[in-house]
Amino acid sequence: MPSVEPDKKAAKKRAAWQPTPVTPGKKSKACVLADFDPAAKPYSSGDKAADTAQVEALAQDLDGLQNLFYADKRFKLLVILQGTDTSGKDGTLRGVFGRMSALGVQTVGWKAPTDNEKAHDFLWRIHREVPGAGEVMIFNRSQYEDVLVPVVNGWLTPTQTAQRFAHINDFERMLTETGTVMLKFMLQISFDEQRERLQERIDDPDKHWKFDIKDLEARKQWTAYQGAYEALLNATSTPWATWTVVPSNSKTHRNLMIATLVKDALLALGLRYPPANPALDGIKIV
Amino acid sequence: MPSVEPDKKAAKKRAAWQPTPVTPGKKSKACVLADFDPAAKPYSSGDKAADTAQVEALAQDLDGLQNLFYADKRFKLLVILQGTDTSGKDGTLRGVFGRMSALGVQTVGWKAPTDNEKAHDFLWRIHREVPGAGEVMIFNRSQYEDVLVPVVNGWLTPTQTAQRFAHINDFERMLTETGTVMLKFMLQISFDEQRERLQERIDDPDKHWKFDIKDLEARKQWTAYQGAYEALLNATSTPWATWTVVPSNSKTHRNLMIATLVKDALLALGLRYPPANPALDGIKIV
Repeated sequence: MPSVEPDKKAAKKRAAWQPTPVTPGKKSKACVLADFDPAAKPYSSGDKAADTAQVEALAQDLDGLQNLFYADKRFKLLVILQGTDTSGKDGTLRGVFGRMSALGVQTVGWKAPTDNEKAHDFLWRIHREVPGAGEVMIFNRSQYEDVLVPVVNGWLTPTQTAQRFAHINDFERMLTETGTVMLKFMLQISFDEQRERLQERIDDPDKHWKFDIKDLEARKQWTAYQGAYEALLNATSTPWATWTVVPSNSKTHRNLMIATLVKDALLALGLRYPPANPALDGIKIV
Repeated sequence: MPSVEPDKKAAKKRAAWQPTPVTPGKKSKACVLADFDPAAKPYSSGDKAADTAQVEALAQDLDGLQNLFYADKRFKLLVILQGTDTSGKDGTLRGVFGRMSALGVQTVGWKAPTDNEKAHDFLWRIHREVPGAGEVMIFNRSQYEDVLVPVVNGWLTPTQTAQRFAHINDFERMLTETGTVMLKFMLQISFDEQRERLQERIDDPDKHWKFDIKDLEARKQWTAYQGAYEALLNATSTPWATWTVVPSNSKTHRNLMIATLVKDALLALGLRYPPANPALDGIKIV
């Protein structure tokens, strides 16, 4: 088992990458997305090989913690990965969560809503997939797509967007008050970094399957998307479900930061195996 | 099709049977459940045969309105039936909603939660079953069981109960802001009326299947349940999802009142068939 002391230095460092949490109804300092440098490496040791080894060690730790989390059953863990195309959501799933047992970990990759999903409120399909007691759920994209795509394309009035923010905040408060720990990561890359990654997908035939022509349309709307991200960070980083912006130009650093923060969050829960059963005391199987 | 003018007299009459809606965070006048007389018949013509005929006529009207509701697709209708054992929830389903086409109407009879349901927040299983656009859903019992049974049996702290009220209010606000019309009916019978109905289930062998020995346990907790109902009426009768107490000692009156109110609610929506398709204009099928 990993050590049980949360890393306090990491917790302090993390705060620099979190928009000021908003309490609905109260004013708070707005964050500026451009202030978060996507090329920064606040969690790096400065040695790439050491960082890579550390990611692997953390991924192993997370596997052990997940086992304990599953046995403990007092909590539910919901991890949200958001970010523009090529920001590394799939890579995070593999690099950070890939060592965890499939027994207690599930992933949903959210696509555009189906007709049946569109016939319901936008949280309907999300709520169905939230984790149960002892379960870890990782969302690759999430309910936040519903305050990005429709906002950028002008399908929602500002009032409707504000309502959705309130619906999300209420929903997440309910989830956290009923035992869910929420970790929301926004994977932030630069415009240039995205160009390189898209170009790579075109130049390398083995990566053609990852390339979607629609990504170029979204890239044209880069500034609008950054604005929509900034708005959602300011509206939905609550005390109960705080956003963390993860500088993600470096894939290794992205994984290192996320793995560190997930581990710290799990350690902070004081997980324990359920009490031993006295009825089993001294029983010898014959 | 039924007439399209909502019955204004009925709307006024209805208000006398609705607890003052609460806006969370603001004080409002508390209702006293005992002030609602379960033997009252505010919607009766005074002639039982006429009332019975009227229920049938209204049930037919509701069938026509449901067809229009389904075509219109702008709204979702969620009807909640709550009430103590034998208060007539099943009878309401048959008598009021029995004429509607199964195409656009569904019913869920909520039972005690399964292990998997208990592993999630109490609204998880509820949210899965809310109606989509154009659909009518009728809940026989509902999320309100989760602020009745556990409250009466002392499984929740007052803080947890208050949290659940807030979760319900937030959830219902989200539903109504995304197109759901909510009608919440509390079917109120007297202690004596319940005795008679339970006795009938024992005395008539054909009704034995309806009798559950657990109902006698719940009957012993009558006062506690009335208190829990009063608390939920005062906490969750919101402007967006108002409770109506339905005096239900008379089955005919209960159906008459609910059918009238559902019809009025549908008429108030200004339902219409979607615009004609000009492309179909003058086409002759050969």
